[in-house]
Amino acid sequence: MTELKNDRFLRALLREPVDVTPVWMMRQAGRYLPEYRASRERAGDFMGLCTNPERACEVTLQPLERYPLDAAILFSDILTIPDAMGLGLYFETGEGPKFRKPVRTEAEIMALPEIDPEADLPYVLDAVKTIRRELNGRVPLIGFSGSPWTLATYMIEGGSSRDFRRAKEMAYSQPELLHHMLDVLARSVTTYLNAQIRAGAQVVQIFDSWGGALSHNAYREFSLKYLQQIADGLLREHEGRRVPLILFTKGGGQWLEAMADTGAEALGLDWTTDMGQARARVGDRVALQGNMDPSVLYGTPERIRTEVSDILKSYGTGPGHVFNLGHGITPHVDPEHAGVFIRAVHELSAPYHE
Amino acid sequence: MTELKNDRFLRALLREPVDVTPVWMMRQAGRYLPEYRASRERAGDFMGLCTNPERACEVTLQPLERYPLDAAILFSDILTIPDAMGLGLYFETGEGPKFRKPVRTEAEIMALPEIDPEADLPYVLDAVKTIRRELNGRVPLIGFSGSPWTLATYMIEGGSSRDFRRAKEMAYSQPELLHHMLDVLARSVTTYLNAQIRAGAQVVQIFDSWGGALSHNAYREFSLKYLQQIADGLLREHEGRRVPLILFTKGGGQWLEAMADTGAEALGLDWTTDMGQARARVGDRVALQGNMDPSVLYGTPERIRTEVSDILKSYGTGPGHVFNLGHGITPHVDPEHAGVFIRAVHELSAPYHE
Repeated sequence: MTELKNDRFLRALLREPVDVTPVWMMRQAGRYLPEYRASRERAGDFMGLCTNPERACEVTLQPLERYPLDAAILFSDILTIPDAMGLGLYFETGEGPKFRKPVRTEAEIMALPEIDPEADLPYVLDAVKTIRRELNGRVPLIGFSGSPWTLATYMIEGGSSRDFRRAKEMAYSQPELLHHMLDVLARSVTTYLNAQIRAGAQVVQIFDSWGGALSHNAYREFSLKYLQQIADGLLREHEGRRVPLILFTKGGGQWLEAMADTGAEALGLDWTTDMGQARARVGDRVALQGNMDPSVLYGTPERIRTEVSDILKSYGTGPGHVFNLGHGITPHVDPEHAGVFIRAVHELSAPYHE
Repeated sequence: MTELKNDRFLRALLREPVDVTPVWMMRQAGRYLPEYRASRERAGDFMGLCTNPERACEVTLQPLERYPLDAAILFSDILTIPDAMGLGLYFETGEGPKFRKPVRTEAEIMALPEIDPEADLPYVLDAVKTIRRELNGRVPLIGFSGSPWTLATYMIEGGSSRDFRRAKEMAYSQPELLHHMLDVLARSVTTYLNAQIRAGAQVVQIFDSWGGALSHNAYREFSLKYLQQIADGLLREHEGRRVPLILFTKGGGQWLEAMADTGAEALGLDWTTDMGQARARVGDRVALQGNMDPSVLYGTPERIRTEVSDILKSYGTGPGHVFNLGHGITPHVDPEHAGVFIRAVHELSAPYHE
């Protein structure tokens, strides 16, 4: 086991003292980077990057070469599980992910297999091992999965959706059927994340990208319940170290107390939530990750620094904050502006950790 | 002035006692109704309905013929103001509203005229007068407008958007320019709503459909500030009666306290906010309107009644609740299910008003 050279991120997730606030960016290996676009062109397409461990490793490390980031995140897609279940993931330019075989009928849902990560998703585990080896202890590696509810929406709708009509129709007219599907997904996500941890992921994050589309009660019934099931089934210690779990429900800012009850070490926040108010609500129970609007990176360097400063001030002194964007960095951002952001976090946060 | 035969809605907005909780539905005159689809076909298109006062009146009254609704809402579009400013509103099937001439440069923004409702939007005021006359005091009539920020997003993006890239880029790189645009819009919305009130609207609602896309701080700077400006400039008494103002920021559930500070009589809630928690936060300062997920109407009649019951129970006893959906009713809803919903509100709410 390689010793970590920079453990700021792990320490902040466990609410231990740090010198400066650690920072990483969701989708930090992404289209805003010219070197990423070049790798993707060589690979042919997005899945050509995901399914080739060497290429996945290459793009995972690219942002770390440019910026003093405090974490690496596995390059993969949230929809690998339904793809492994046989739904046929594909991407149409400008249209987002789609499935050739959406799952809607009772027969289709009852036939969904639980996945075996070693047999069904070896390329992901190989990528984790390769990246971990190449990182060589530079920063911790984050593994991840989509949440059961978020995966179910794509599987039922056949792609992304504005209103989740079919998934919600199932929730309100055939809830038992949807619960069966969510249970299969929760068991698959649990074994998938545990396999990533065994392969070398030192932190895991669950992306509940569409949990915020649910009502206050339906979130508890159809999303949070399964986040709890996963939290209960995860390996929480590996290589003699705690493996922190980060839950990120986009649009879930009103439900932080309930999310903290799952026992996750940290909660991701989007930009609609005030950091200081969130901290007051969850107290010392969890660390908080976020939450600058990625669109701020379209602003001037001065504005970027002001926004970073405001969020740091809102969180206040002491440990437990991981700086991040409130969602993935977007393709049109100037890479120089991402650098301004990351350097500003380190520079402006030092006084809060004295 | 005709006496109101059913003033439950007005009374609830002013937190006065009622016999049962009043109910209406955003977009209640909409595509889910076959009689609406027939009217629209006769009119040729959506704007053909909006711009003809007799047709606008016809579709406004259609849901009142079917259901025991407690309010009527002017049939119109939130984008009439930018259309009157010369941007050229049009609709492409399945694509939502678009503008032929988006507004992006400093020269385009500085040239935006403040609108004069009597001269620029006479068809809206004629529709208000016609509907008010035909309602003949049956229920109150709601007038409405989009919020300045929401109108600005459509004007800058040229249509609807997933991430509001251009509008947010302006917010973070040229904030003074965006503020000028928002000020012109706020002054136009104020005169527009006041003209609707003088023409007969007894309540006004501002739809801040995209306020929830902003960060906690940016919401205050780019949306709420202009909602306050409008609230300060509105006629608050007309025909010897208070004219209640309803603010609805979709996705604004974390900002209710700040919204209540504007002096609006009521706040609209989407389905992500728990009614009871919202009431505890705003106390007796405002009435609350909402907040069932329209997707519940895809569910069984039993599930619809359960959801209505849960929201009524969460709000609790006493006045100040107007039942509504958390957003507009969607085209695929069975009209029978809308009836189940409306009847359930009246039937199940009576015990909370004894």
